[in-house]
Amino acid sequence: VGHGGYAGEELVAYLQRHDAVAPLLLDLPRHERRPASPRDGSAPSKAILQARQAIAQPPPAAAPARSSVEEALEGPPLDAVFLATPIGISLKLAPRFLSAGTRVIDLSGAFRLSTAAAFEAWYGTTHSCSELLQVAVYGLPEINRQRLAAARLVANPGCLATAANLALSPLQHAGVIDAQSLVVCDAKSGVSGAGKESRAATSFCSVTDNFSLYSSMAHRHVPEILDVCRLEQERFLFSAQLLPVRRGVLATMYFQLDRGAETGDLEAALADAYAAEPFVDVYPSGSFPNLASVVHTNQCRLGHEVVEPGRRALVVSALDNLGKGAAGQAVQNFNAMFGLAETTGLLPS
Amino acid sequence: VGHGGYAGEELVAYLQRHDAVAPLLLDLPRHERRPASPRDGSAPSKAILQARQAIAQPPPAAAPARSSVEEALEGPPLDAVFLATPIGISLKLAPRFLSAGTRVIDLSGAFRLSTAAAFEAWYGTTHSCSELLQVAVYGLPEINRQRLAAARLVANPGCLATAANLALSPLQHAGVIDAQSLVVCDAKSGVSGAGKESRAATSFCSVTDNFSLYSSMAHRHVPEILDVCRLEQERFLFSAQLLPVRRGVLATMYFQLDRGAETGDLEAALADAYAAEPFVDVYPSGSFPNLASVVHTNQCRLGHEVVEPGRRALVVSALDNLGKGAAGQAVQNFNAMFGLAETTGLLPS
Amino acid sequence: VGHGGYAGEELVAYLQRHDAVAPLLLDLPRHERRPASPRDGSAPSKAILQARQAIAQPPPAAAPARSSVEEALEGPPLDAVFLATPIGISLKLAPRFLSAGTRVIDLSGAFRLSTAAAFEAWYGTTHSCSELLQVAVYGLPEINRQRLAAARLVANPGCLATAANLALSPLQHAGVIDAQSLVVCDAKSGVSGAGKESRAATSFCSVTDNFSLYSSMAHRHVPEILDVCRLEQERFLFSAQLLPVRRGVLATMYFQLDRGAETGDLEAALADAYAAEPFVDVYPSGSFPNLASVVHTNQCRLGHEVVEPGRRALVVSALDNLGKGAAGQAVQNFNAMFGLAETTGLLPS
Amino acid sequence: VGHGGYAGEELVAYLQRHDAVAPLLLDLPRHERRPASPRDGSAPSKAILQARQAIAQPPPAAAPARSSVEEALEGPPLDAVFLATPIGISLKLAPRFLSAGTRVIDLSGAFRLSTAAAFEAWYGTTHSCSELLQVAVYGLPEINRQRLAAARLVANPGCLATAANLALSPLQHAGVIDAQSLVVCDAKSGVSGAGKESRAATSFCSVTDNFSLYSSMAHRHVPEILDVCRLEQERFLFSAQLLPVRRGVLATMYFQLDRGAETGDLEAALADAYAAEPFVDVYPSGSFPNLASVVHTNQCRLGHEVVEPGRRALVVSALDNLGKGAAGQAVQNFNAMFGLAETTGLLPS
Repeated sequence: VGHGGYAGEELVAYLQRHDAVAPLLLDLPRHERRPASPRDGSAPSKAILQARQAIAQPPPAAAPARSSVEEALEGPPLDAVFLATPIGISLKLAPRFLSAGTRVIDLSGAFRLSTAAAFEAWYGTTHSCSELLQVAVYGLPEINRQRLAAARLVANPGCLATAANLALSPLQHAGVIDAQSLVVCDAKSGVSGAGKESRAATSFCSVTDNFSLYSSMAHRHVPEILDVCRLEQERFLFSAQLLPVRRGVLATMYFQLDRGAETGDLEAALADAYAAEPFVDVYPSGSFPNLASVVHTNQCRLGHEVVEPGRRALVVSALDNLGKGAAGQAVQNFNAMFGLAETTGLLPS
Repeated sequence: VGHGGYAGEELVAYLQRHDAVAPLLLDLPRHERRPASPRDGSAPSKAILQARQAIAQPPPAAAPARSSVEEALEGPPLDAVFLATPIGISLKLAPRFLSAGTRVIDLSGAFRLSTAAAFEAWYGTTHSCSELLQVAVYGLPEINRQRLAAARLVANPGCLATAANLALSPLQHAGVIDAQSLVVCDAKSGVSGAGKESRAATSFCSVTDNFSLYSSMAHRHVPEILDVCRLEQERFLFSAQLLPVRRGVLATMYFQLDRGAETGDLEAALADAYAAEPFVDVYPSGSFPNLASVVHTNQCRLGHEVVEPGRRALVVSALDNLGKGAAGQAVQNFNAMFGLAETTGLLPS
Repeated sequence: VGHGGYAGEELVAYLQRHDAVAPLLLDLPRHERRPASPRDGSAPSKAILQARQAIAQPPPAAAPARSSVEEALEGPPLDAVFLATPIGISLKLAPRFLSAGTRVIDLSGAFRLSTAAAFEAWYGTTHSCSELLQVAVYGLPEINRQRLAAARLVANPGCLATAANLALSPLQHAGVIDAQSLVVCDAKSGVSGAGKESRAATSFCSVTDNFSLYSSMAHRHVPEILDVCRLEQERFLFSAQLLPVRRGVLATMYFQLDRGAETGDLEAALADAYAAEPFVDVYPSGSFPNLASVVHTNQCRLGHEVVEPGRRALVVSALDNLGKGAAGQAVQNFNAMFGLAETTGLLPS
Repeated sequence: VGHGGYAGEELVAYLQRHDAVAPLLLDLPRHERRPASPRDGSAPSKAILQARQAIAQPPPAAAPARSSVEEALEGPPLDAVFLATPIGISLKLAPRFLSAGTRVIDLSGAFRLSTAAAFEAWYGTTHSCSELLQVAVYGLPEINRQRLAAARLVANPGCLATAANLALSPLQHAGVIDAQSLVVCDAKSGVSGAGKESRAATSFCSVTDNFSLYSSMAHRHVPEILDVCRLEQERFLFSAQLLPVRRGVLATMYFQLDRGAETGDLEAALADAYAAEPFVDVYPSGSFPNLASVVHTNQCRLGHEVVEPGRRALVVSALDNLGKGAAGQAVQNFNAMFGLAETTGLLPS
C-alpha cells in the first residue's frame, strides 16, 4: 500500500526481483492517494510491463466505491503487507491488517517509539492505537534480528536514525564512547527523503545550488537514536541538512573516546559487530564512504578515524534513504520475519 | 507589482542599481499574491536592507483592506509601473494604470499578440481589454526601438521568443533564409522559466538528472516568433525542453540558406544588425555561446555555422530568461521609453 | 578489456547479472590503462565482493611484465571479448583476438564505418587494419539482427547514432520522410558520454548550471546515421549539446513528411518496426519520453508528433548512453551472436 | 596576479566595480600560468569589453620574454598587488613586490600561519621567506581591523577558517564555550574551493549526485581556526566535505555552553560582536542561513540555537568561498589598508 510514493516505488522494484514473493499492489481509496510521480509517469517499458503482468493480480471487477485495500482486507488474509503510507493512514490500516491475520511492515513513523507519551511528545499528536506500540518490533535487523522472526508488526526505522544507529550503537554498547561528553550527529539527506508532495522547499529552484539546515534536535528520528543507542538526550546534538541530490544520506558523527578505550577499540567494535553482516561495510581507518557508492543499494557503509592526542573520533555513515533507509530495509525485515535468507531480493544484480 | 516572483525579484535587483529610478514595491491584495520564495526567505543582509531603506517608501498607515497597488492607483500618478504578474492580473491592472496616466511595462503574455483572435487562439481565453492590443508596443528594442519612445504600454516579450527572434529576424529580413524550406527552433529553458508556483513537474526530484520536451508548436511564444520574423506557421517547427538548471535559455535553430545567399551573408547579416547593439554579441563563425556566459546578464549571444555543401545553417542563441528574457529587457524598454541611455542599470558592474 | 571506463564499468555490472556468462576482467599493460574512477574507488560492498569472487578468475601468478590481456591471448581462446577501449587500443587488440579465435564486440569507433577512406575522413587518422572493416558487422540488432549470428567482429554503435537511427531508420525506409527537405537532429548528451579522462570541459564547475553545443556536422557519430538511414549528407543537420547530467541521451529530430505520406503513417511505421522489439518503446502521438525514464535501462523510447497543416513532424528518442548507447547494446549484440534470448541479462530486475 | 583562477576572476569582477582603483591585470611568465577557464572562455560581451578597456592599461610593447609581472616589478611601484596565486608563486612574488614598495594582499596560504615551524607542520614544506611571517597581518577585518591600516603584507584567510572563526571567535572570547569539552566544526564546501585544475575528484561525473568527506583534522585551514579562536587542538574536531554545488561554504559547529553562561549569552555575544559589521548578519535564534542567500555576496551569515536542558549549542555559518571566503574579503582588507570605507566595491548593486 502506498506504491506511488518514493519509498513505495522503490519497494515495488525490490519486490519484483524477489524470488519468494508474489506482490500485489493495493490502492487506497482515491481521496487518500498521493499524486503520481511526474518523473515516472511515462509509459513503462515493455520489459517492465511484462514483469508487472507476471506479478500483478487482475483488478477485481468490484463496485468502484471499494478500493483494492478494502478488497484485500475482506478476502483471504495476505501473508504480509508493506505500508509505505503517511502516519495517519498507517495508524488506520495497521490494526485492520493485523486483525485480519496479515503481518505488517510499516515504513512510516507510526510505530517506531515505544510509548504513547513519547509518540505524542515527538509527533505532536495522540496515538490512535497505542496498544500496538508494545507489539511492534523496531526493524533494524543488525541490532534486533532475534525479535523479527516472531514479529507481527514491524516498524521500519527512519533513514537518518538507521545511518546513526548502525554507526553509534555498537560503539556505545562496547563502551568506546565517553559517557560524559557530547555526541554530535551532523546528518545530510537527499531530497527524496522529504517525500513526493510538491512544496516550495523542495522545488528545483529552491534546492539546486543550495544547502541548508532544516531541522535539529526536534527531528522525529532523534528519539530512535536515543532509544537504540541508550544515549541521554542532554548530551546529544543532531542536525539534518538538505543536500542538492535526489537520494542518499550521509551522517558524520563526532565524540570523545572513553578513558578506558584504546585507539584501536573503535575499529575493533565496528569490525566485530559487522563481520557477518552482508549489508554493513566497515572501511579501514581513515577511509570514508561517499554517497555515490551506496545509492541504489541496501548497503550501509561506515568510515572512521581516531584523532590523537585527544581521544577524539569521527565516524561517517552512508546509505541510500530509499534503500537501507526505507524499502531495502523493509524487504530485509520481511526476509527475517519469514525465515528467508536476509539478502533475498537485495543483491545488486 | 509582482516583486515576489522570479522575474519580479530580478527586476528589483536591476532597479536597485539603476541611477535614474526611485523604485516603489507595490503589493497586490493578499488573496492575489504568489507565495514568497523559500530560497530567499531568509533575512536580507544589512547591506541590502540599507539599500532597500534608501529606495522603499514607508508603508502607508492605511486601512488594511487596501493594498499598496490600490494606494498607488489613487494617489498622484507614477511615471511607470512594471507588471511582473500573471496574465489575469496584468489584464486587470494595465488599463487602470494607463487611465491613471502611468506608463506600463507588462512582463506577462497579456499584450504580446496584436489581435484578440490571436490571443484567444494561443492563450485559450478571451481578452478582457483587447482595445489595448493595438496600443501595446512589442518591447524588443533591437527590432522595435523607434516605437518605444512614445509607447504608453509595452509588452515585454517571451524569453524563448526573444532568443529566437534576435537570431532569426535579421536573417529573415536580409533574405538569408530559404523561403520554402523548414525552419527549426529547438529551445531549452531553465526551470525558473516555469515560475515559482510549486508543482510536481518542477520539483527537484523531477528535474534533476532529467531532461524532457514539455511543449511544441502550441507554445505561447511561437506566435511572437512568427510575427516578428514574418514566418509562415506551416514551415516552422519549434520545441521547448526543460534543462536541469535554474536559469538560462539556449535555442538552436536550423534552416536552409536562400539560393541567392552566399555563405558569408549569414555572418554579415548578424554583424550588420548588431554592430551597434550593446546587448547582442555575435560570435565568429563556428563558435557558440554557452549558458554560463549569459546568466546574470542582459546579453543575448549568437553563434552560427554555415555547412557546405548543402547551404544549411545552424544558429545558437543564448540569454538569461530572467535577464534579457524578462527583467533586463523590461529595464531596457523602460530606458528607451524615457529617453535614457539603454544600458542604464544593465551593465554587469 | 577496459573495465575501468564508464562503459566498461556498466558492462561489468550487466555481465554480473547475466546467467550465461562467466566474465573475466582483463587488464591492459599498465602504461595503457586509464585512471580508475574516483567515484567508485571506495571498497566494494561485501555483496559485490562475493559476487565478484564468484566470477573473477584468480589473478595468475605471472611475471609482472605480462598483463592479463596478454595471458588471455596466449591461453586457450575465449569465446568472446568486449573491448571497451579507446580506438587506438581496439585497433591493436581486435585483430589479435580474432586471430586467436575469439569473437570481438568492440565499443569504440574503430570498426563502425565501412571503408578506410570514410574512417580517415571522419576520424582524421589512417586505419591500421582496414581489411576488418568489411568483416565487422554494425551492431544495431533492431536493424541488423540477421547478420549478427555469424559475426566474428561486431562494431557497437555510437550512442547518439543509436538514438537517431532507431528513430529515423524505419521512417526513412517506409518513405515517410520527404526526400528533398532538411532533416535535423538536435542531440543532447550527458557528461559520461565524454569518457572518464579529466578535462576542463567536463569539470563540475564547467558543466553545472551550464549547457552548450560542443559539436555539429563533424561529429563522428554522423556518418553512422547517414549510413544506416541512407541520408544524403547535404540535407542533414546535426548538433551535439552537453547536458548537466551524468548519463542519458535525448535527441529531437525534425523533418517534413513525404508528399505521399498520410499523417498516421509515421506512427504506423514506428509501431510496425518495433512491435516485437523488447528494447524499443513507441509512445502514443503527442507523448514524449524523458531522460529519467531510460537511465539505467537498455531501453530506447520514442515519442513523436505530426504537426498539421504543413506536414511537419518531430520525433524524440531517449536512451541511456551507457545502456542502449553502449554496454547494454553490447550485451544485446553478444546475445544475438551466441543465439541467446536477446533480453538475457538486460531486464531491469 | 593570478586573474585566471576562480578567486582571481572574482577579484577582477569586484575591482571593476570599485570606484577607487584602477586595476591592472598582471600575467605570470607563460610556464607558470594556470589554464584558462573553459566556462568563461567565450568572447566577453561588448559591455564587459568596454568596461575592461576603461580599466586595463595598454599592454606594453615589451620584449615577449618579459611577463607583465616583471614589468610591474621593474617600473614605478604599484600601490598594492593582489596575489591570487598558488603558494609557491606567492612565496616568490611577495618578497619582491614588498621590496619594490608595493603592499601585498596574498590570497594563498603562504603567510597565514605565524611561524616557520607551524607552516612546515601543516603545509609539509619549508618556508622560503619565513621572516615575512611576522610581518604578515592575518586579514580578517572583523577581528583584526586595527592592524590592517599599517599592514604591508596581508594574508587573506582560508574560506573554511573564515566561516568558523566568524562564528566561534566572539563566543570563545566571551567565554560562552565550555573550556573542557569538544568543539566540532562540520564544514561543507562547494567545488570551486578546490581550484580550477582538472582532476578526477572534481569532474562532473564524480561530484554530481554525490557527497563525501575529503579531509579532517589535517586540513590546512585548521591551524587558522585554532590560532584565531585560541582553541586547543586536542578538543577540536573538524571535517571538510564536498557539496555538489559550484560555490559556497556552510559550516555547522557544535559545543557545550560554559557553566557560567546563560542561554541568552550566545546570541548576545554574536549580536555585540557584529552589530556594526556590514558583512556579518546574525539571525535570530532558531533561524539558519542557507548557501543561496550568501552566494555572490561578501556576507557571512550566522544562525544559532541553544538546546536546553543540556547547555548544548549549534551555530551555522554560511559564506561564499569566492566572496567573503576569498576575493571579497581581499577587497575588504584592501579597503581597510588604504583607509577607504570597508564596503567600497562590495555592495551587491
